[in-house]
Amino acid sequence: MKNYKLAVVGATGVVGQKMIDVLLEKNLPISEYCFFASSRSAGKTIRFGDDVYLVKELTESSFDEDFDFALFSAGGETSLKYSPIAVKHGCIVIDNSSAFRMDETVPLVVPEVNPDEIFNHNGIIANPNCSTIQAVCALKPLDDTFGIKRIVYSTYQAVSGAGSKGIHDLENGIKKFNDESFEYSLEKFEYPIFNNCLPHIDVFLDNGYSKEEEKMINETRKILGKSNLAITATTVRVPVFNSHCESINVEFENGFELNDVMTVLNSAPGVIVVDDIKNNAYAIPTEVTGHNEVFVSRIRRDFSVANGINLWVVADNIRKGAATNAVQILEKLMNT
Amino acid sequence: MKNYKLAVVGATGVVGQKMIDVLLEKNLPISEYCFFASSRSAGKTIRFGDDVYLVKELTESSFDEDFDFALFSAGGETSLKYSPIAVKHGCIVIDNSSAFRMDETVPLVVPEVNPDEIFNHNGIIANPNCSTIQAVCALKPLDDTFGIKRIVYSTYQAVSGAGSKGIHDLENGIKKFNDESFEYSLEKFEYPIFNNCLPHIDVFLDNGYSKEEEKMINETRKILGKSNLAITATTVRVPVFNSHCESINVEFENGFELNDVMTVLNSAPGVIVVDDIKNNAYAIPTEVTGHNEVFVSRIRRDFSVANGINLWVVADNIRKGAATNAVQILEKLMNT
Repeated sequence: MKNYKLAVVGATGVVGQKMIDVLLEKNLPISEYCFFASSRSAGKTIRFGDDVYLVKELTESSFDEDFDFALFSAGGETSLKYSPIAVKHGCIVIDNSSAFRMDETVPLVVPEVNPDEIFNHNGIIANPNCSTIQAVCALKPLDDTFGIKRIVYSTYQAVSGAGSKGIHDLENGIKKFNDESFEYSLEKFEYPIFNNCLPHIDVFLDNGYSKEEEKMINETRKILGKSNLAITATTVRVPVFNSHCESINVEFENGFELNDVMTVLNSAPGVIVVDDIKNNAYAIPTEVTGHNEVFVSRIRRDFSVANGINLWVVADNIRKGAATNAVQILEKLMNT
Repeated sequence: MKNYKLAVVGATGVVGQKMIDVLLEKNLPISEYCFFASSRSAGKTIRFGDDVYLVKELTESSFDEDFDFALFSAGGETSLKYSPIAVKHGCIVIDNSSAFRMDETVPLVVPEVNPDEIFNHNGIIANPNCSTIQAVCALKPLDDTFGIKRIVYSTYQAVSGAGSKGIHDLENGIKKFNDESFEYSLEKFEYPIFNNCLPHIDVFLDNGYSKEEEKMINETRKILGKSNLAITATTVRVPVFNSHCESINVEFENGFELNDVMTVLNSAPGVIVVDDIKNNAYAIPTEVTGHNEVFVSRIRRDFSVANGINLWVVADNIRKGAATNAVQILEKLMNT
């Protein structure tokens, strides 16, 4: 069995660190690892199982070494600049930024949803937006069975999705609540996220939507392979450290029995149904954090349309929404 | 001018206390106040401006005194038992519980929305559910102008809506985060609300919906006077102390220009539009708390249907969602 050489770019970030956890858990056939970050983080050490690695600065010559694969999670600008260099050196890039997601020549992959797309790459495979990944895991099998006509998304997104600065903003807000004299400046959000809900994720666009909302709409269409699917979205940051929740309203083309929806979701890959309201069983962020699956709850008929349902979908946005999904793509590539 | 005699039932609760604040601010023609609570809270004192009142225990003879009006906010059982007694003694009851809201003989009133209904009472006027009040303030003028066809609600509800026990659960969760050794038991919620989102408000019903979701659906229909309006809802508790947020997706019967929607909302009574995304201006709980109005933001066309919009609606659930709305009803009754 071949042993591969892997680069992790953005290794000191929230997603990069989780990629390392997931790589350790998966125990893939990798013989050499190299961890890159910006000059600011270069020189730090990374524990990887029993080993300690020095973080290297990412430069234009970083890919002179012959890597088989690279996991990028260092923001769109880094991906735009360095992943073509990596590809030129024969390295396959799995990119967690939004830089290439809507590029028609780049597959946008959730392994449970559109695994075959992985192999239609020209060197770069894009990892979708966190809030999109968890949604499509639940929606794809439903689309296959009942035909989705329209989706209305409302999200409840954790601060970890905004990286360590987002986490600091929530931590500092909590500290301030406990100690009025504590002073801090917001690092990430426009307003305090502690004790608040902010209907603002990523930048705002001219059409009134946020870029996060546009990502959910466009990426869902691309991954489901339905370029004109009717979708709208409202994305909101909530004071939760980790795991995104989504209230998803779905209209189907065809009639259905609710039992059949349950059957489809129960057999969907990577999906765990937690829906026993009589015993107060439903997915919540604190219980979902640390898991790689997508959890679906509150499954019920929407009586306001002919063929609709409501769902509550929760996933660890740093695992399945980012690191786990990227490593799953890597695993598929290695298994060929 | 007549000077009225007012009873406040449930005066020591979160809503009761806020009723007292709003009564002080409004300075209505009231010459005598009496504050009632359960035997547990009787004997406590209440500051009312410069005066201090002793809280009396609510009993079957409490309404032997001739009150003109009573504000009830002590839960459905108390309202069911004591408001008929009050009415028998000629007292008009404004009831904040859910006990009478769907009773066909009881008006369900938001003064900006259906003020004329106030006078169709048989002694009891119901104050709607908090999450319904703020929604209909934004939706009624839109329905009048464009004709609402369907509503999809997803809510982000503060813990104050669950009373002081709900507030304690969040406070204790924050304390625990700061001090691992701190021990506490949940007083209100099934799971910790700190660092979580709970898709569970009030009890669950056989059809899979929570009672809070059913309230939003049925009360919106009753207040808008459209008994068959297509509405669905997902209601969620978030770790915010005060002010509910709502992501509302609305489909209209008729075509519209977005500018006209803005014009309608800008001139809607009790509504303040805060929607300047270029300057990151949108309503958030910490800014809305303490205000009596309903704030509407993120107003944008929903491109997934012929005639749809998305709205972000925020209001102080203890003020406009409960105390302010009840006192506004009282004010209308006094002004006749």
